[in-house]
Amino acid sequence: MSAVPLQIDTATLLSSINNMWILVVSFLIFFMHAGFAMLEAGQVRSKNVANQLTKNLLTWSVGVSVFFLLGTGIASLASGQGFSAAFQSSADGWINWLYGAVFAMTAATIVSGAVAGRAKLRAYVTYTFLLAAVIYPVVIAFTWSAPGAGLVEQLTGTAFTDFAGGMIVHGMGGIAGLTAAAILGPRLGRFNDDGSVNVIPGHSLTFAVLGTLILAFGWYGFNVGTSAIFSDGAPVMEQLGRVAMGTTIAMAFGAMGAGLVAWAKSGKVDTLYVANGLLAGLVGITAIPHTTSWWGAIVVGSLAGAQLPIVFSFVEKTLNIDDVCAVFPVHGSAGVLGTLLFPFVAAPGVVDSVANAFIAQVVGVVLIGGWTLTMTALIWYVLKLVGQARVTPEHEQEGLDISEHGVETYPEFGGDEGVIADGGPTFKTDGGADITDGDAE
Amino acid sequence: MSAVPLQIDTATLLSSINNMWILVVSFLIFFMHAGFAMLEAGQVRSKNVANQLTKNLLTWSVGVSVFFLLGTGIASLASGQGFSAAFQSSADGWINWLYGAVFAMTAATIVSGAVAGRAKLRAYVTYTFLLAAVIYPVVIAFTWSAPGAGLVEQLTGTAFTDFAGGMIVHGMGGIAGLTAAAILGPRLGRFNDDGSVNVIPGHSLTFAVLGTLILAFGWYGFNVGTSAIFSDGAPVMEQLGRVAMGTTIAMAFGAMGAGLVAWAKSGKVDTLYVANGLLAGLVGITAIPHTTSWWGAIVVGSLAGAQLPIVFSFVEKTLNIDDVCAVFPVHGSAGVLGTLLFPFVAAPGVVDSVANAFIAQVVGVVLIGGWTLTMTALIWYVLKLVGQARVTPEHEQEGLDISEHGVETYPEFGGDEGVIADGGPTFKTDGGADITDGDAE
Amino acid sequence: MSAVPLQIDTATLLSSINNMWILVVSFLIFFMHAGFAMLEAGQVRSKNVANQLTKNLLTWSVGVSVFFLLGTGIASLASGQGFSAAFQSSADGWINWLYGAVFAMTAATIVSGAVAGRAKLRAYVTYTFLLAAVIYPVVIAFTWSAPGAGLVEQLTGTAFTDFAGGMIVHGMGGIAGLTAAAILGPRLGRFNDDGSVNVIPGHSLTFAVLGTLILAFGWYGFNVGTSAIFSDGAPVMEQLGRVAMGTTIAMAFGAMGAGLVAWAKSGKVDTLYVANGLLAGLVGITAIPHTTSWWGAIVVGSLAGAQLPIVFSFVEKTLNIDDVCAVFPVHGSAGVLGTLLFPFVAAPGVVDSVANAFIAQVVGVVLIGGWTLTMTALIWYVLKLVGQARVTPEHEQEGLDISEHGVETYPEFGGDEGVIADGGPTFKTDGGADITDGDAE
Repeated sequence: MSAVPLQIDTATLLSSINNMWILVVSFLIFFMHAGFAMLEAGQVRSKNVANQLTKNLLTWSVGVSVFFLLGTGIASLASGQGFSAAFQSSADGWINWLYGAVFAMTAATIVSGAVAGRAKLRAYVTYTFLLAAVIYPVVIAFTWSAPGAGLVEQLTGTAFTDFAGGMIVHGMGGIAGLTAAAILGPRLGRFNDDGSVNVIPGHSLTFAVLGTLILAFGWYGFNVGTSAIFSDGAPVMEQLGRVAMGTTIAMAFGAMGAGLVAWAKSGKVDTLYVANGLLAGLVGITAIPHTTSWWGAIVVGSLAGAQLPIVFSFVEKTLNIDDVCAVFPVHGSAGVLGTLLFPFVAAPGVVDSVANAFIAQVVGVVLIGGWTLTMTALIWYVLKLVGQARVTPEHEQEGLDISEHGVETYPEFGGDEGVIADGGPTFKTDGGADITDGDAE
Repeated sequence: MSAVPLQIDTATLLSSINNMWILVVSFLIFFMHAGFAMLEAGQVRSKNVANQLTKNLLTWSVGVSVFFLLGTGIASLASGQGFSAAFQSSADGWINWLYGAVFAMTAATIVSGAVAGRAKLRAYVTYTFLLAAVIYPVVIAFTWSAPGAGLVEQLTGTAFTDFAGGMIVHGMGGIAGLTAAAILGPRLGRFNDDGSVNVIPGHSLTFAVLGTLILAFGWYGFNVGTSAIFSDGAPVMEQLGRVAMGTTIAMAFGAMGAGLVAWAKSGKVDTLYVANGLLAGLVGITAIPHTTSWWGAIVVGSLAGAQLPIVFSFVEKTLNIDDVCAVFPVHGSAGVLGTLLFPFVAAPGVVDSVANAFIAQVVGVVLIGGWTLTMTALIWYVLKLVGQARVTPEHEQEGLDISEHGVETYPEFGGDEGVIADGGPTFKTDGGADITDGDAE
Repeated sequence: MSAVPLQIDTATLLSSINNMWILVVSFLIFFMHAGFAMLEAGQVRSKNVANQLTKNLLTWSVGVSVFFLLGTGIASLASGQGFSAAFQSSADGWINWLYGAVFAMTAATIVSGAVAGRAKLRAYVTYTFLLAAVIYPVVIAFTWSAPGAGLVEQLTGTAFTDFAGGMIVHGMGGIAGLTAAAILGPRLGRFNDDGSVNVIPGHSLTFAVLGTLILAFGWYGFNVGTSAIFSDGAPVMEQLGRVAMGTTIAMAFGAMGAGLVAWAKSGKVDTLYVANGLLAGLVGITAIPHTTSWWGAIVVGSLAGAQLPIVFSFVEKTLNIDDVCAVFPVHGSAGVLGTLLFPFVAAPGVVDSVANAFIAQVVGVVLIGGWTLTMTALIWYVLKLVGQARVTPEHEQEGLDISEHGVETYPEFGGDEGVIADGGPTFKTDGGADITDGDAE
């Protein structure tokens, strides 16, 4: 049928198909940045939307560049293999590099939702730089990228299980976000002197839900895409099927779990809790979709969703930390929960010793969480010390869009009183209705 | 090249590639929920947006869970094979389950657009439960999931043709939506006492068009993804090419057909008709993309688009049914039309007897439509009888976002006078402009 | 394992996998229309959003239909192979047709961003028709679709290099947009009599950034998808890896380059420049991702981003052309830049003679740019001559949504004074707050 000499053997064929799959799922995981951007933009006030969007664009741009030039090399160095940066690898290795990079950038972008509305752009970018260069690379150096047994296996004799980053990506990002938000302090007016709380509602539930559904779409790439199509010369359809089912079921029960708890607490089915519960269900299963039984996916999803309103309330009312986009209950505690549930919800035959497996999970969570918390606290503390962590109260009141970016997100809508006053060109309205504010000086 | 023993034969290889394809297209079809959410949110008033978004999130969450635990089993039972639920299947069967589930959930979500702005959340969730557990499973038990010949073939001797769910998914969803909207009654002020109509415009055409384009993207998964890559050991490139072309051309002519009829009627090219016409073109071809000639795709798309403004007007002005998001003209009548056109637009050699084929299509449409209408009417009638179908007039005026969910979608915009008054925490504005309403009590 | 006779040889298997890949990336590229729609909608005023959205819907609908019925045939004719339209091809050829069509429609849709806010719908649709029927088909007839050596190779002895359409799609679209905008003239009030400029801000940065990220997602399909998985019986993993890396790195440095220049100019990190810079980085690499070294991707991305604020300023302040969505700096100059940089940033061993390669690139750019400029100028000049190019000043002031489409995009928000007054049905608000304007007459 073909005159060309065929230069392919079966192993090459299967690895090529795997690479095609890796590319497709990497694209899906990249698209999660649109999801994060919308989810976070929807949950901040209209005067801070452009700031949030810019942070998301720069997380990806700065982060992936740093991960290319430094992060991959530092991961390699930390795992005892010498500095070997992504730019030194051969071209076909770049498919795998991109695949690793989209996971790294997911960890990075979670933090922006916690520090919204008051962190300086330069502080956030500095932190993103260090996360992509050092914090995340060190985590994978001792887990996914470890040349032999990972650190937890060396310490406990049992391997740490984290299939697609329930702890390594999401748990880490959620803990980093909570730490940064704690050190940065709350937005003006978020808490009263007596510790009681004020709600500062986001400006658009529509964008928040859009972001949620984009994230869920990308998450299929994140979880199912972590499985190869072929392994050791054979297809891994059982694993792919289990991951696809578990991701779906945990997501569904996460939404229902959070919605039901919110309903029990307030008598209303809060839209944002349902949306964030769906995401918490996804986070919860992410460490363990390849081993979890169908009923385990129901348990993990339900608990990950149900803990969301409770943990959010605890962070807000007890800790008085202003985690604007609820990244700790969605990514942090849900990720930890799912990781720790591993031996209890596994399909038959997966786990030999529940005790050993649980200990390995606890050790892994403590190591990753401790490292992340320590480094994040250190960086934001230094930034605060040198007065670069947060914008002035005047800029916070005015909104970060104007003070940091010189723009208004919605110049024709809303009651924002900010005025663009940077000596730039005057604004005209091509003969239409006047723009409420932002008039020329 | 590889030291691993290769454990793959050709049949396994081809079915594995098929499974990879099924996963990718299932992800695309799942993403249609983001499309439906945006399309419907854009077409409702701002006071009802969060309600619409919550319904979309719960359609997926509740629906897919019910379909997993009950629906798949009931489909199996109804087709005479005994109860065999998805959770009982082996892991590699879950790839196919997910594939079936994303089609089922598409049927379910269509209804929410018809009953927007006045249905109680609990009524909608109850209906979704029953649709996912019984109504849709019974339809597929006698068509796609029938163990031998489907019901229509048993009755008429000729098989019912519905490739990707033009009738089974979209026609069914559109008829269910119209039925539910009819029993529920119109929104307040939608019709005057003399039967004349008032337009209640949606709050954002941008979200509506975004939703349209997300749906069209996912639809490639829906239609093209219904074809395997390999079948019986050979590639099916001709079918894939035909489906890809037909889907594209019918979508394009649907948009033009609706736009032209709207233009002829009003002298303006209405944006929403163009958008919904594009979708109607897609619905029209969905039953028959694998058999339709290129000129047939033009005919089907044009007619499916052109009927949209006419059928919408008929539903509104003659039937006085308040189908908020035009789900009947978009999914119902367009789906029926495309299904019935099957023998008239087929490529040469596809159809032996036009008469027999047409009769089979008519019988299939009547059976599916009749079952759907009967069951839907029954459920909503009972809900109405027990006073659980629709919110109070006060809640409808105030908006369902506040009464059902305790939130405002856009707290900083718009003239909504609703006040969140559930004794919750007070609202503060971190020093920015005041929030127009929703002030603390 | 299987009883079916397997009817597949290796060449067929590899081409089938290639076709599956082509379908997936074609879907991604199609989704870029959602990106363009959101990016452009966000950058226009709220009174012109529906017009922009309708143009985007019709670009795809009209354009792809014309490309199916005429454009493919004219490309075939122009390349000396006789008229051979898409509808004449066999079904499996339609996969490749769709793949070509989504590239063609990307070129077409760029123009709508340049002529926003004042072009008549019929003028824009006429131009789209001619672009899809003639302008773009002639370009590919002498490049991608040339049966033997392309025109540049015939003229200079060296082939013109444009991998995924950096010049053929984006450069062409950007030049077409600038030309059309120049002939059409600026929006009312955009420039003062002394040539000084007024900024007319878009209505939503959120939609603009959403569009940016959707485009970046689709771009992976655009660039990486231009490489096959298998070629001549062997996998092309090295090319796939290089393209994936280059696309990622150029995008990242494009965002940083534009952001840094904007920061240097104004002291602020302008959100829209970062977003458009990300796109300019993508455009810059699009002609050459398969040959560019990793450091070359940094150079191309950085320069493509950095030129954006400078070229935008030149177009605005020196040329006084109202390129509303900055399509020339994003698609035109960035596309030309990347195409010309080909020999200077190539990986070792790619280019034999830098001089010859550069000359071929220059000749290609001049030919494509000259053809596009001439044809576009001619068409818009004729449209202007017959008074069909632009709406009346009254309609421009009122907004094109009302005058061209009879709709309001956001009837519940904003200060738009327009009233829908076409004798249609009256508006009611289902008992909620009044709609600010658009009241019934």
